[in-house]
Amino acid sequence: MMKLNDVAKLLINKDNILILIHRFPDGDALGCSYALCSALQSMGKKCKIGCADDVPQKFGYVKKVIVEQDFEPEYFVAVDVAASHLLGKLEQVYGDMVDLRIDHHGKSTPFAKENYVEPKSASCAEIIYLLIKEMGVNITPEMADCLFTGVSTDTGCFKFSNVTSRTHKIAAELMELGCNSAEICKVMFDTKSKSRIAIEKAVLDNLRFEFNGLCAIVTISLDMLAKTNAQEDDIDGISSLPRQIEGVEAGITLREIKSGEYKISFRTSDRFNAAAIAEKFGGGGHSAAAGCSISGNESDVVDTLLKEVEKSLRNRDMI
Amino acid sequence: MMKLNDVAKLLINKDNILILIHRFPDGDALGCSYALCSALQSMGKKCKIGCADDVPQKFGYVKKVIVEQDFEPEYFVAVDVAASHLLGKLEQVYGDMVDLRIDHHGKSTPFAKENYVEPKSASCAEIIYLLIKEMGVNITPEMADCLFTGVSTDTGCFKFSNVTSRTHKIAAELMELGCNSAEICKVMFDTKSKSRIAIEKAVLDNLRFEFNGLCAIVTISLDMLAKTNAQEDDIDGISSLPRQIEGVEAGITLREIKSGEYKISFRTSDRFNAAAIAEKFGGGGHSAAAGCSISGNESDVVDTLLKEVEKSLRNRDMI
Repeated sequence: MMKLNDVAKLLINKDNILILIHRFPDGDALGCSYALCSALQSMGKKCKIGCADDVPQKFGYVKKVIVEQDFEPEYFVAVDVAASHLLGKLEQVYGDMVDLRIDHHGKSTPFAKENYVEPKSASCAEIIYLLIKEMGVNITPEMADCLFTGVSTDTGCFKFSNVTSRTHKIAAELMELGCNSAEICKVMFDTKSKSRIAIEKAVLDNLRFEFNGLCAIVTISLDMLAKTNAQEDDIDGISSLPRQIEGVEAGITLREIKSGEYKISFRTSDRFNAAAIAEKFGGGGHSAAAGCSISGNESDVVDTLLKEVEKSLRNRDMI
Repeated sequence: MMKLNDVAKLLINKDNILILIHRFPDGDALGCSYALCSALQSMGKKCKIGCADDVPQKFGYVKKVIVEQDFEPEYFVAVDVAASHLLGKLEQVYGDMVDLRIDHHGKSTPFAKENYVEPKSASCAEIIYLLIKEMGVNITPEMADCLFTGVSTDTGCFKFSNVTSRTHKIAAELMELGCNSAEICKVMFDTKSKSRIAIEKAVLDNLRFEFNGLCAIVTISLDMLAKTNAQEDDIDGISSLPRQIEGVEAGITLREIKSGEYKISFRTSDRFNAAAIAEKFGGGGHSAAAGCSISGNESDVVDTLLKEVEKSLRNRDMI
């Protein structure tokens, strides 16, 4: 595999670079792509970012770190993209043109000519931080803001189990480089839109427990979304809610995608394998977080799911 | 002022030490006192902890780091205690006996013979971590668990504006020393009791906005507490909720203490002075967070409060 130093050397020798990120861009994709773009521009290169979707408003500040440049790209870098279909509508154009992929997703579908992947890195921003240093570029406070956005959002503000000591060390260094960490944390983790509050209330209104509280279920219906005017960003993380409740081993979120079709999210304790349940319905994921899609009316879908959960609970002598 | 090195030398020369912490002990008070006690015990000293209240269940693991010792204390250290009345029922016995106070609260009422205070330290655990190193004691994974508990809980998991680069550096070092950071974060920040969920729902049910959404108000009534079986721990942080809503400049929480008496919490943006409003009702606090008590029925109390908020909004040309 390439070393980070090889990646740095490679990029130093390229120009007219397009950095591609995944559709529905999150804090990590935006933070690391904009920081890298800024670093490459500061070296006198032409560089821009390609994304199928707009930058969500709350991340708007990352855009200030780069200069808009118009040019014909010659070198294509994908950052934080585990599979070409995640490029969204840009896949058709760039899906098979990616020269280099820099990522932290261990599970991926190969599509780039060269790859630099650190599956143990909590965020792609950690890798890009080290890469920018490796390229010998001075990290400005604005780049540090971008990178801190990635480091903090992909770890739930240093809460998730993906955090390593390196994560905290990099956060410390970004603070010393002048990032507005407190302001970023306030916007990302301490601000809720009115729609978010409304959808949380609606979700809590339909929260129900099964199997003596070992399983908790919530539904996000199209009707709830319409009534609360909630956007994608407003329901981010809601699927973690049922599992967070004390005593719950399996949390299930039904999200109505269209009438009669549900996207199911499973979040489970370490006594349960979420992926094993999701796979029974043609889905997949990790042991603690997995998903699938099921068609039917809500109560039938719930019944079907609960039968599988019940089997798992019985197999583990938990009921 | 004493230097940390002086504090280390002082403690190295003492024995039969009682470490006092504040009533209703939180993660920082518990984490740093138990870690310090463990460090002193590991040097062959007799040391124990005095607290007016029990260790809450979720912090139970800190108790494993020390050995229970029975002895007559000769040297008294207060940790994370800003005023002697915070010792609760232990104040009467020990209030004027404290030899050394180690703390991070800048505002305090003097009561100890000697003081080591770092107001810029996000937690007392940061100070105790450096002190234990200064005393030359090896930090065990169990001590690291205690210290990480303090470092993370007093910063809202690295979210609050009190976090410095030192906070992250210490978190990184504690992880390298073997603390169970992910497990601690899960228990502290990713677990909600059923009562917590129920009281959150009840609070959202009565959330109301005033002045075009610039002010949000919630009530926690005795009836709600009884119906949801919520304890003190379950309502921790709820007073931050109204202010977290996008566009809200002043968040007000009414907590019914007894029939006809309300404890009021103000949380405000930087365009507002929470303490200035609280002071009008005989309370006080900081510019972003303050409180007071008001007697009366709920709607009268709300009317009284809203009149003051309205004045502040008008003074700032916000309405």
